[in-house]
Amino acid sequence: MAARTGSCCAPIARQPLAEDAAADLAALLKAVADPVRLRLLSMIGSHPDGEACVCDLTDAFDVTAPTISHHLKVLRTAGLIDGERRGTWVYYWIVPQQVARLGELFTPLAAPAAAG
Amino acid sequence: MAARTGSCCAPIARQPLAEDAAADLAALLKAVADPVRLRLLSMIGSHPDGEACVCDLTDAFDVTAPTISHHLKVLRTAGLIDGERRGTWVYYWIVPQQVARLGELFTPLAAPAAAG
Repeated sequence: MAARTGSCCAPIARQPLAEDAAADLAALLKAVADPVRLRLLSMIGSHPDGEACVCDLTDAFDVTAPTISHHLKVLRTAGLIDGERRGTWVYYWIVPQQVARLGELFTPLAAPAAAG
Repeated sequence: MAARTGSCCAPIARQPLAEDAAADLAALLKAVADPVRLRLLSMIGSHPDGEACVCDLTDAFDVTAPTISHHLKVLRTAGLIDGERRGTWVYYWIVPQQVARLGELFTPLAAPAAAG
């Protein structure tokens, strides 16, 4: 009941979203709303070099390389990762600004609800 | 290119997500990865009373009341909103802790990337 006193304050809860903003954000969220893509994002982001070769990513999954390529393409189209080919392989890295857009939407701007 | 130097630091990018955590988070993200549900979440959260009657929500959309009810049920099942019936109508409010889970996943823990 305490939760409804109105100051939950994440941007998503501060003012009604316009239709076009909602469509744009939903597309970005759909790109991450998949277990394989979330794992890919976390594997790329946490790779020691800050970037990961596609050859480092496929072994962790029970799906085929073309399926992994599809998921990487979805993340890249959404602007969450970028990449470049070097010789045989494509290397990917996180685009932190785009990841942060997701965080900002759901993060309270005021003091976090720590009290009580 | 600067983005790949490894300190993008949002929890999603700090260590590889385990399969079960990825499945759990993907389900939560799917609940918000829809323009109508994002708008509902924002309308409920920003309602002056901190809660909104379903009767206040349906008029803003070109879809039927049962469709809105379906979307509200998805949000409620994901724990992002809660609600209770009072007389004729059901009233909904945001569950800030669950919304914040989404924010935490994508928000850098270190200093935000403001420089450069």
